[in-house]
Amino acid sequence: MKKQRKSSGIVIIGNEILSGKTLETNSNYMCNQLFNIGVECEEIKIIKDNKLKIIETVRRFSKKFSYVFTSGGIGPTHDDITTAAITEAFNQKLCLNEEAKKRLEKHYSDDVLTKARLKMAYLPEKCRLIDNPVSIAPGFVIKNVYVLPGVPKIFQIMANEIIKSLDEGKRYYKKTVSTKLSEGIIGGYIEKIQKKFHSLEIGSYPYFKKNSFGVSLVIKGEEEKIVAEATNEIFSFIESKKGSPKIF
Amino acid sequence: MKKQRKSSGIVIIGNEILSGKTLETNSNYMCNQLFNIGVECEEIKIIKDNKLKIIETVRRFSKKFSYVFTSGGIGPTHDDITTAAITEAFNQKLCLNEEAKKRLEKHYSDDVLTKARLKMAYLPEKCRLIDNPVSIAPGFVIKNVYVLPGVPKIFQIMANEIIKSLDEGKRYYKKTVSTKLSEGIIGGYIEKIQKKFHSLEIGSYPYFKKNSFGVSLVIKGEEEKIVAEATNEIFSFIESKKGSPKIF
Repeated sequence: MKKQRKSSGIVIIGNEILSGKTLETNSNYMCNQLFNIGVECEEIKIIKDNKLKIIETVRRFSKKFSYVFTSGGIGPTHDDITTAAITEAFNQKLCLNEEAKKRLEKHYSDDVLTKARLKMAYLPEKCRLIDNPVSIAPGFVIKNVYVLPGVPKIFQIMANEIIKSLDEGKRYYKKTVSTKLSEGIIGGYIEKIQKKFHSLEIGSYPYFKKNSFGVSLVIKGEEEKIVAEATNEIFSFIESKKGSPKIF
Repeated sequence: MKKQRKSSGIVIIGNEILSGKTLETNSNYMCNQLFNIGVECEEIKIIKDNKLKIIETVRRFSKKFSYVFTSGGIGPTHDDITTAAITEAFNQKLCLNEEAKKRLEKHYSDDVLTKARLKMAYLPEKCRLIDNPVSIAPGFVIKNVYVLPGVPKIFQIMANEIIKSLDEGKRYYKKTVSTKLSEGIIGGYIEKIQKKFHSLEIGSYPYFKKNSFGVSLVIKGEEEKIVAEATNEIFSFIESKKGSPKIF
């Protein structure tokens, strides 16, 4: 069977990100994993810990994309409202999940399985658990929405497991040619090359490092042979202009 | 005059972010600057270099927030489509901006003011320029939308200038208490404190570092005195539990 293109969206939930306190890195981690299995991330939205906003965003994303991933707000404190909001988004009820409770009981002795911790076992009636080998309290899947915690270490472990379970989409092949020539110099040529290889997506990304600057040209497409052909052509052009090309 | 709460939204434009190639940091930089002048960032959206998507998002954000900031897609190459899209979003036409052209001519000699570079002087008919001391090609303001490039170094310099020109909103006071106790242990107490100080926003953020973990409690509010009062109460509680509190 021919593989279909799969789409996805990421919803990052947390006031700490919007106030600038926290540099958000979970979406970047997820985008990389998704790219590797041919699932395109089409949109990332970062919103506050606001129930109505979470409900509205998750409902819209769930309809729009093959897969949705959320990060943040499923911990034990009063400001963790993601689980309740997503439960409501799918017109379900929060229930004590026996399996989640069992896991927490096994991990914590009686006196430290506080009410706050037990809150993390209250999940939507119908959902699948996502294992959490670090701090035990599970994430969950409801319909096509994967609900993960915001702590990067746990987010990443869960993401790795989820990625293995997804239907792979049609993969892209990607090559990068870097050069010390600037965009203003090669821009005209790159536009022509993009027109010639219209099935490819050619992106031009300037970079500024400490004592140098340059451009990374990313050549992306579904057919490895065509990507290689365009890459070689760009490489030769830049070499002819003494632009020190490198291929990655 | 009493200061009003001001809102803002950030639109990050670029395929390279959604494919995971680039870790996006401009929104974090902007959120920090905005927080410092009392302008709340309510939402960040990361979208592809897609004309219709840019038009739709910018129009919606412009209506919804006091200020909108965009990052990415205003360079000289074929995949830089943000300027054209935002011009269309406000039903304007792209014109050669004489001032922008003059600046580019001054910076580049004739033979390197390529067609690609001159593209960056084509801006909406009616807009204000944002100076770019690094690579000269300006950003621009149209209505309440500030259009900036994606290169972090240039984005940050422009952001710093813009911030000075904005109407300040009502500032928040913020204190952080960190502790080695985990969320599950202090969650119940923090919920009570949140209820007692209902005018404040108390956030609880677990962190995992190399060999330690703990929680940062962020206490935020409009009145410095109340923030201080709640901070002291939380500090004393954590001290009584031997939780090694620290105030930032």
